[in-house]
Amino acid sequence: DAYFLFLENYKTDKQEFSRFPTKAGRRSLSRSISQSSTDSYSSAASYTDSSDDETSPRDKTQLNSKGTNDFCVKNIKQAEFGRREIEIAEQDMSALISLRKRAQGEKPLAGAKIVGCTHITAQTAVLIETLVALGAQCRWTACNIYSTQNEVAAALSEIGVAVFAWKGESEDDFWWCINKCINMEGWQPNMILDDGGDLTHWVYKKYPNGFKKIRGIVEESVTGVHRLYQLSKAGKLCVPAMNVNDSVTKQKFDNLYCCRESILDGLKRTTDVMFGGKQVVVCGYGEVGKGCTAALKAMGSIVYVTEIDPICSLQACMDGFRVVKLNEVIRQVDIIITCTGNKNVVTRDQLDRMKNGSIVCNMGHSNTEIDVASLRTPELTWERVCSQVDHVIWPDGKRVILLAEGRLLNLSCSTVPTFVLSITATTQVIQTLPTVANKQQIAVYEYVASLHLPTFDAHLTELSDEQAKYLGLNKNGPFKPNYYRYKCPC
Amino acid sequence: DAYFLFLENYKTDKQEFSRFPTKAGRRSLSRSISQSSTDSYSSAASYTDSSDDETSPRDKTQLNSKGTNDFCVKNIKQAEFGRREIEIAEQDMSALISLRKRAQGEKPLAGAKIVGCTHITAQTAVLIETLVALGAQCRWTACNIYSTQNEVAAALSEIGVAVFAWKGESEDDFWWCINKCINMEGWQPNMILDDGGDLTHWVYKKYPNGFKKIRGIVEESVTGVHRLYQLSKAGKLCVPAMNVNDSVTKQKFDNLYCCRESILDGLKRTTDVMFGGKQVVVCGYGEVGKGCTAALKAMGSIVYVTEIDPICSLQACMDGFRVVKLNEVIRQVDIIITCTGNKNVVTRDQLDRMKNGSIVCNMGHSNTEIDVASLRTPELTWERVCSQVDHVIWPDGKRVILLAEGRLLNLSCSTVPTFVLSITATTQVIQTLPTVANKQQIAVYEYVASLHLPTFDAHLTELSDEQAKYLGLNKNGPFKPNYYRYKCPC
Amino acid sequence: DAYFLFLENYKTDKQEFSRFPTKAGRRSLSRSISQSSTDSYSSAASYTDSSDDETSPRDKTQLNSKGTNDFCVKNIKQAEFGRREIEIAEQDMSALISLRKRAQGEKPLAGAKIVGCTHITAQTAVLIETLVALGAQCRWTACNIYSTQNEVAAALSEIGVAVFAWKGESEDDFWWCINKCINMEGWQPNMILDDGGDLTHWVYKKYPNGFKKIRGIVEESVTGVHRLYQLSKAGKLCVPAMNVNDSVTKQKFDNLYCCRESILDGLKRTTDVMFGGKQVVVCGYGEVGKGCTAALKAMGSIVYVTEIDPICSLQACMDGFRVVKLNEVIRQVDIIITCTGNKNVVTRDQLDRMKNGSIVCNMGHSNTEIDVASLRTPELTWERVCSQVDHVIWPDGKRVILLAEGRLLNLSCSTVPTFVLSITATTQVIQTLPTVANKQQIAVYEYVASLHLPTFDAHLTELSDEQAKYLGLNKNGPFKPNYYRYKCPC
Amino acid sequence: DAYFLFLENYKTDKQEFSRFPTKAGRRSLSRSISQSSTDSYSSAASYTDSSDDETSPRDKTQLNSKGTNDFCVKNIKQAEFGRREIEIAEQDMSALISLRKRAQGEKPLAGAKIVGCTHITAQTAVLIETLVALGAQCRWTACNIYSTQNEVAAALSEIGVAVFAWKGESEDDFWWCINKCINMEGWQPNMILDDGGDLTHWVYKKYPNGFKKIRGIVEESVTGVHRLYQLSKAGKLCVPAMNVNDSVTKQKFDNLYCCRESILDGLKRTTDVMFGGKQVVVCGYGEVGKGCTAALKAMGSIVYVTEIDPICSLQACMDGFRVVKLNEVIRQVDIIITCTGNKNVVTRDQLDRMKNGSIVCNMGHSNTEIDVASLRTPELTWERVCSQVDHVIWPDGKRVILLAEGRLLNLSCSTVPTFVLSITATTQVIQTLPTVANKQQIAVYEYVASLHLPTFDAHLTELSDEQAKYLGLNKNGPFKPNYYRYKCPC
Repeated sequence: DAYFLFLENYKTDKQEFSRFPTKAGRRSLSRSISQSSTDSYSSAASYTDSSDDETSPRDKTQLNSKGTNDFCVKNIKQAEFGRREIEIAEQDMSALISLRKRAQGEKPLAGAKIVGCTHITAQTAVLIETLVALGAQCRWTACNIYSTQNEVAAALSEIGVAVFAWKGESEDDFWWCINKCINMEGWQPNMILDDGGDLTHWVYKKYPNGFKKIRGIVEESVTGVHRLYQLSKAGKLCVPAMNVNDSVTKQKFDNLYCCRESILDGLKRTTDVMFGGKQVVVCGYGEVGKGCTAALKAMGSIVYVTEIDPICSLQACMDGFRVVKLNEVIRQVDIIITCTGNKNVVTRDQLDRMKNGSIVCNMGHSNTEIDVASLRTPELTWERVCSQVDHVIWPDGKRVILLAEGRLLNLSCSTVPTFVLSITATTQVIQTLPTVANKQQIAVYEYVASLHLPTFDAHLTELSDEQAKYLGLNKNGPFKPNYYRYKCPC
Repeated sequence: DAYFLFLENYKTDKQEFSRFPTKAGRRSLSRSISQSSTDSYSSAASYTDSSDDETSPRDKTQLNSKGTNDFCVKNIKQAEFGRREIEIAEQDMSALISLRKRAQGEKPLAGAKIVGCTHITAQTAVLIETLVALGAQCRWTACNIYSTQNEVAAALSEIGVAVFAWKGESEDDFWWCINKCINMEGWQPNMILDDGGDLTHWVYKKYPNGFKKIRGIVEESVTGVHRLYQLSKAGKLCVPAMNVNDSVTKQKFDNLYCCRESILDGLKRTTDVMFGGKQVVVCGYGEVGKGCTAALKAMGSIVYVTEIDPICSLQACMDGFRVVKLNEVIRQVDIIITCTGNKNVVTRDQLDRMKNGSIVCNMGHSNTEIDVASLRTPELTWERVCSQVDHVIWPDGKRVILLAEGRLLNLSCSTVPTFVLSITATTQVIQTLPTVANKQQIAVYEYVASLHLPTFDAHLTELSDEQAKYLGLNKNGPFKPNYYRYKCPC
Repeated sequence: DAYFLFLENYKTDKQEFSRFPTKAGRRSLSRSISQSSTDSYSSAASYTDSSDDETSPRDKTQLNSKGTNDFCVKNIKQAEFGRREIEIAEQDMSALISLRKRAQGEKPLAGAKIVGCTHITAQTAVLIETLVALGAQCRWTACNIYSTQNEVAAALSEIGVAVFAWKGESEDDFWWCINKCINMEGWQPNMILDDGGDLTHWVYKKYPNGFKKIRGIVEESVTGVHRLYQLSKAGKLCVPAMNVNDSVTKQKFDNLYCCRESILDGLKRTTDVMFGGKQVVVCGYGEVGKGCTAALKAMGSIVYVTEIDPICSLQACMDGFRVVKLNEVIRQVDIIITCTGNKNVVTRDQLDRMKNGSIVCNMGHSNTEIDVASLRTPELTWERVCSQVDHVIWPDGKRVILLAEGRLLNLSCSTVPTFVLSITATTQVIQTLPTVANKQQIAVYEYVASLHLPTFDAHLTELSDEQAKYLGLNKNGPFKPNYYRYKCPC
Repeated sequence: DAYFLFLENYKTDKQEFSRFPTKAGRRSLSRSISQSSTDSYSSAASYTDSSDDETSPRDKTQLNSKGTNDFCVKNIKQAEFGRREIEIAEQDMSALISLRKRAQGEKPLAGAKIVGCTHITAQTAVLIETLVALGAQCRWTACNIYSTQNEVAAALSEIGVAVFAWKGESEDDFWWCINKCINMEGWQPNMILDDGGDLTHWVYKKYPNGFKKIRGIVEESVTGVHRLYQLSKAGKLCVPAMNVNDSVTKQKFDNLYCCRESILDGLKRTTDVMFGGKQVVVCGYGEVGKGCTAALKAMGSIVYVTEIDPICSLQACMDGFRVVKLNEVIRQVDIIITCTGNKNVVTRDQLDRMKNGSIVCNMGHSNTEIDVASLRTPELTWERVCSQVDHVIWPDGKRVILLAEGRLLNLSCSTVPTFVLSITATTQVIQTLPTVANKQQIAVYEYVASLHLPTFDAHLTELSDEQAKYLGLNKNGPFKPNYYRYKCPC
């Protein structure tokens, strides 16, 4: 059954892979980047009611308006409110809406029985409802115990999607929900759409026979991809899996384009700093570093770059940034931003030499880049100024402003535009389509991109027959070589 | 004999290759891009004397100051003048000078007998003298009958390099020089450094036995690489060949960084146009298009982009350009710039609709992008305003300003900074080194990049042992996956 | 008594003045821009306790730690908390701290008895304490009934400044506080530092004899300056008055530099919109428009400009923006931003034609620029999505996102960096100094600027005697002609 | 006779004036900036024939096709060639063409008898022919002995304008031509259009009675304005004079917009330097400095600024440039650019410390900024590399590249776009119109700006009656206060 592409990034370039987890880890906006499903999750804006209903959803019996009860959410009555939020999200996710329109009449996902485990938000609701519109049957659960928008879960349940999720699950609830999602009498899932790998893991462990019947796994997170790879390396991944995380389009938006905006947003919301005239050092000149430096330069900051890689260094030079070692500028800079994917890029020794009032934050990878642990010593005082902002105070009164305790600034103190989420969601949907089998991945990504052009009223030029022949290309693409499917490490 | 890398780009990705000539052709600054060695060649600044000595160098007997006569140049007495130009060029090619210093004492190229065929300029002289400094014996000839700087040829001959080249060779001279270069009693070349493939072709055809003794071919031009590939496809390339043209570093400089500057330079030198407020359409948003649009936007032009590729289109949107079809803006733009690698991107029909006084030029590929032939009709008057600038005049008096007759603006009306040539020359030298055998190409390119960092006083950060282990990288690189060696098609 | 400069902007250029209120009104960040002291005031971050103490401060008897009770604040016990906030503010207001140091030993304001009426925040506390450090006696009250930071008022009262202000005053409280400030047995104020003109008005009306003893009025707001001018025109302003609002330094920061950042901040906090690829029209290309367009262009938006003035239009062209009439682009833009100082720049008719999901907001003047009143009709539904964000919904379902109900986005939905407030506060302090009498205003502004350079580690070059003579300048400035004191209308 | 505005800049702000010559001198693109009419003049592109006709035009008798001989040019037969150049220039000077159209039927300059003394180029021909079209009688001569385009002089003579000028006049020829221009039987000039003041001086000295009959002098150069001011100060300027040099529109284009482009052009044409990654220090952050820094930053250079003025320094900080003293960076920079209007900004001591291969050039004022004289000492060797480029070589071999011998780079090594010349020429024409009498100068400049908007297809918004009333403005402007007529010193 060659129905789906088989983890192609990994198989075709295996010698690359030993480096992959860290390189991939250079940064991801995937909300599932948190190592664990029980990590705290700061939802920027939640309309979730704060009613004092303390009853566990597991103990309630609820019916939707059609009289069915195959779901478990906080409060089915919030469905109408959730519906409105979904409608608003649809406006920024027109690529998915247009996918529904193109399929009209036909049901390319007829026969697909999809279990999903993602954050349950208005945006993922648009994704799920697109799958349904294309003919799939869906059962869904949450990949994080805090991130569910209850009203959205209700709205999905109301239209018949079997959702098992609420905000504030216990860990026991979490696995109970996953299990309810899979284990339904007379219903055998044949596809997994996962974010973090917990669902996949559960099916693999608890339903080994069922696992073999899965025809495809679509995984979007760094962590989940890594877990799949471990399985594959161990020879136990008998199921085709699609790596949505590393597509060039997703990565460009998650890194370059999104960070160009979120670095400003994250710094402003937390510190109200004025960018003009500030001296800033950005550690790392990959896509994230390129986005951060471009934005700050444009706002009138004076920006320095540190790099380990000569090619990226040369690019930084050409883009007008001095390439320095951190120690050369540590005493003069107002802001340090890490974007390396590395660990201990800013050490205690360096923090000791920072200026009074300077800011340090991380846009790179997890929470490893700044050696925050080294700041938890008795002679330093921590003062929580507001959410996500700590003043670390030295004995001489010097204050260094640490944001998000060294975790990712853009996830903690900024928001991800719906448009960016749409790129990922659209890729996920398309990866489930049987029609993409045997297609080069670059063709998939080009198709995803083309679905997002109408948002910008952008008009593609078409090749004439003569031109296509001259270029040796098919008129409908792909227009790039297949190795371009990788995220670009430049 | 695994002495050299074997055309790896082609072998590992064969299915890509059918598209290669055109993709490669998206643009190259290689001066050998002209299809033929007898194409006219506009050297921006030539200090060559205009003495009226009409005697063919072939008919002269000249001795250098050491009393040898194994060379054939215009006038050996110009050597001192040429030496001064070489010294000036050395200042911008410090990477090669530093290579010489690193090798001091040792002669890594001892035993190498190199025949070369390139433009003979002050910059290539620095390349050749570096090969000599590293222990190689060199014999050299010109790849274009017009491009030789006579005084540089003299300076090389003076120090004992056997040069056979002068400005204004006949085609017969051209092949005579090539042959003199190869065919020397008791001297069997074992390496070829070629630009365009003429030398390689000659050895292959005329000295089939000698060809088999070649241990490596270093080729820098699109055309030459294409000819090698044809040979390889036919199973006749028994010699390892290194493709210098497609390295990511060379391409970034030839395309993005160089065009960002040369589009302004080329337009200004030819037309004195003011950029501020001008409406410009750039056809194609590859690296060249990205460079052109960035520069013009920064100068206050209003820039539109046309594209066939959805991924590049989305990038153009994110960078702030409206993506249109050419016909949407053809009547309003002041300047059209083609950078597609395609043919007939601007047609007669579109030229007919351009504004009076508007400018059309090509930064892309060869001379195919603008349908210049369609303008050579009786009802249109051509007026040569100055070198490289034609006014094409419509019956109603409308003038369209055509630059370089549709050939590459940056080669015809601008100059290539020595620093850019240094990137290529350094790559060529390093490819000749036996020590690079079995190294991943990305490592070569990172090394070339690192040699150019001192020019910018850029300071690389070194990984600690702990960090290298965390990242799964060697402390000395390579830092990127090997597929990054390809020029980036983004 | 020529102690102070006399409203010089107005007197020297009287014919200009009839236009002044509106031109001045092109925009001001002064928080007192709201017409009335009882306007709502959204303090971005208030640390004020939300204790349920409902007792009016007027009904309490409180003593500070020195045992005095000449103040009226919410809760004197919050003083320590307020002190910490003042200390943090001091870090970004080093110009004032350096002023204190320069005066050390001397008391240039000895004898000055200043009554002040401003927002009472950590930043104004730094201003007030600088006046005290320079020798002045101060009594202070709030210029807005909502804007007082109670803990800061407490901290000031604790060190002996007579503060009469709390958050949530009634209008009666407001005037009671002002009166307490002025009317103290045996204490005759001789200087007024006002923001909005209410204090000045009260002294003028209620204490006509006291008014004549005032030696100077320092006014920072558009409204207050306008009221002073009306008084002056009527021949009733017998007191020298300093217009702090219109200094070139304040205006550059309030408008160009601050708006360049706050437009991004305000849009992001309210809508999470992605800027890349968005089509935006900015109405008005004065300093505010220049700041907004520069920021959005840098973030990858496609920006159009509307203007009434040909000189500003030409500047917009040169800066790379298409100058259009609003109607030309109304159907295609994603965001409309008004910065004109004019009224009804966006009409109902135009709002009717905007795209679904588009955003409209005002960075210009007061709340006049968007015809918000025209949207309050029965066929349109307003939906408050969150604070400062309304969806206005047309009968066909189209939504237009209106920010801050058409009031100033940057005041309502963003914050003003302390550094910007420092420019104004420093100007206010310096205007109170007797030593500035008879100095050209441009000298004052240059001095204010020079006090802020150390923040950026900027090093001024000094003229040699020979150079100063050549230029006909004094080595210590002023370096610019005095007409440059005006805010630049370019 | 209040026919014309009277040197208003000077009269209304007299106390400013002692600084004026230098401030004005901060920079001007006026080609007459050279102190003397016999300075060498590098015309970037001259189509003038190089025929070997050595006969002085004064010794020839020539007739135009109408049979008149009231002119003296090199060769009347070149008229047709000159006509074509004028037609090409007209395309970029559509503001003047549109002025002609608006006047059609009427002759607002009927009765005006204008003597002019300017560079005689295709662009000034468009100016002169506009005056003629509006009804004036014109006699013309050249303000520089080298700058005349002979074929243009011929074309003007052919249509009946009395031109006395040719390329390569002797000084005696120069004054002879001026005299021929004025001294015509039965023709008394009543207006002077001058560039440099030589014509005005001659009339004043030689024809004192005729001088009194002049109703207006239009002067465009710094030098000429300065000479007029000296006359005025001495009480001897009995004639109204218009200062075209200092208008805000001319200055913005001559300085900010033009230098933004010409700094790149001038450096590229002379040195082929690559801008990316270069470290550059720009001395002076007035309009010229702002243009140069913006361009180089955009091209990827790392730019430092030196300044004497705190307000400009703060602007440089906000725009993202480190403000340093020259000595702080002298050893590391690759390029020094002076734009101060000052003298000896770069001293020998500093030149001694520059890097090998670094470039020094002047965009500011005359040739005073770099102490070039200090380099003419025996231990330094000068090597002329090509026109306008000298290598100055220190005893240790260090080379510093000096451009244009310290004269203005943009005049010597770049060209002035016709559009920029159009702004000046249009202002000159409008200043001659009687209808501008009693108009505020700002109104004139706004009108000039509005005439240039169609070039950019820019569409002005018109105020409604209600809006005009609200703003206190006339619907047709002026929109700015009159003090804005000054060039902006920011």
